[in-house]
Amino acid sequence: MPNPTAAILVIGDEILSGRTQDTNTHFLAGELTAKGIDLMEVRVISDDKQTIVDALNALRQIYDSVFTSGGIGPTHDDITADAIAAAFGVGVEIRADARAILEARYKEMGTQINAARLRMARIPDGATLIENPVSGAPGFTMENVHVMAGVPSVFRAMVASVLPSLTGGAPLQSQSIRIDRGEGDIAGPLADLAANFPDLSIGSYPYQHEGAYGATIVIRGADSSQISAAAMQLNALFPEGKP
Amino acid sequence: MPNPTAAILVIGDEILSGRTQDTNTHFLAGELTAKGIDLMEVRVISDDKQTIVDALNALRQIYDSVFTSGGIGPTHDDITADAIAAAFGVGVEIRADARAILEARYKEMGTQINAARLRMARIPDGATLIENPVSGAPGFTMENVHVMAGVPSVFRAMVASVLPSLTGGAPLQSQSIRIDRGEGDIAGPLADLAANFPDLSIGSYPYQHEGAYGATIVIRGADSSQISAAAMQLNALFPEGKP
Repeated sequence: MPNPTAAILVIGDEILSGRTQDTNTHFLAGELTAKGIDLMEVRVISDDKQTIVDALNALRQIYDSVFTSGGIGPTHDDITADAIAAAFGVGVEIRADARAILEARYKEMGTQINAARLRMARIPDGATLIENPVSGAPGFTMENVHVMAGVPSVFRAMVASVLPSLTGGAPLQSQSIRIDRGEGDIAGPLADLAANFPDLSIGSYPYQHEGAYGATIVIRGADSSQISAAAMQLNALFPEGKP
Repeated sequence: MPNPTAAILVIGDEILSGRTQDTNTHFLAGELTAKGIDLMEVRVISDDKQTIVDALNALRQIYDSVFTSGGIGPTHDDITADAIAAAFGVGVEIRADARAILEARYKEMGTQINAARLRMARIPDGATLIENPVSGAPGFTMENVHVMAGVPSVFRAMVASVLPSLTGGAPLQSQSIRIDRGEGDIAGPLADLAANFPDLSIGSYPYQHEGAYGATIVIRGADSSQISAAAMQLNALFPEGKP
């Protein structure tokens, strides 16, 4: 059975303008790989409601799960909850359980709750909450879409809350072999090796270090014995290329 | 006149598996913003020919320019040139000018040219070459699509070769103001401010530092006098919130 598939939708003008380097994708990509969920696509889009609706409706129909990052804070540019509700054609209102979480958190901190903060309790009808141990304000899951904060520490905590509830597949195994030869020397034998192991994905990632060329060959697949066999053949091909 | 628009298409299983953190997007996003080209969307997809063809054909029809990253090296998993040719319905062959660049480079380095290295001279019919001062093997431009390497140092050099040939718009100006207050306190007045300046985009990016909450407010737009006016009003709203 093939692994479940996923996409990430990063919502944020600050990524597109070059102000902020997105790191949530890299984090979640590693978590999904470890869980046996195949990340197939990532999209980064702007804080525009119709853009979010269109991208979300495209991705949620193609992939088993969609994870979104960004736009669920208290300010006017936080429009993800409204966009998700629009994409699913449901309403979005302040919900008692989300409100109670916020009230408890603010009471603890001695902070006043106000209209802006209450925006974070607006949850699309029919969603379930995603716990946020870092700053209280919850994310939410709507069918196969998991809506999480963009702040990396909160995003990571929400991923930890969501992932155990998902069914994974065979975790992707991999083995990396460094070969201190130019990719152009490696490429021919490597293509033959890849052809001999059609169930494996063999990638070549070149590097240059102090003027010397080399490549890290990454052999990926679900079957670790096949990976080991391919790695042995690769090592035999380039015995002198090892560091 | 609105600014020209752009998308980035990052091609690479290594990004989706979580092995590699993509940094090319962040770099190019900053360059485009400085040039007055609005980056509207980024997609990260796998090294699969049909996937590349479909994504490219979608993006190149929506945006003025598309920049791709990855998949133009010498190994079997480098299939971007073939995918681009398929997307445009043209052939792809070893081209004399690209071959001459590679031969000169390898001669200089005392490296043998071979069938794998010659793959890097395969250019879709009708494309123009993008200079690669780092490692020789060129990228190429096909109509509004700029095809560049994934290795960050090479990607950056290719961006520097391509950008001067593009027409920019009004560079996005921005001003950032740090306010040492929780986003929930800032949100109400900030929404009013944003409503007063409909031509500006005002974003709020929360942070937490040693237990204290704050937010960086970024005011973006093409007109720096409007940005200054909005910044003055914001400073007046939170005089005590400045560090």
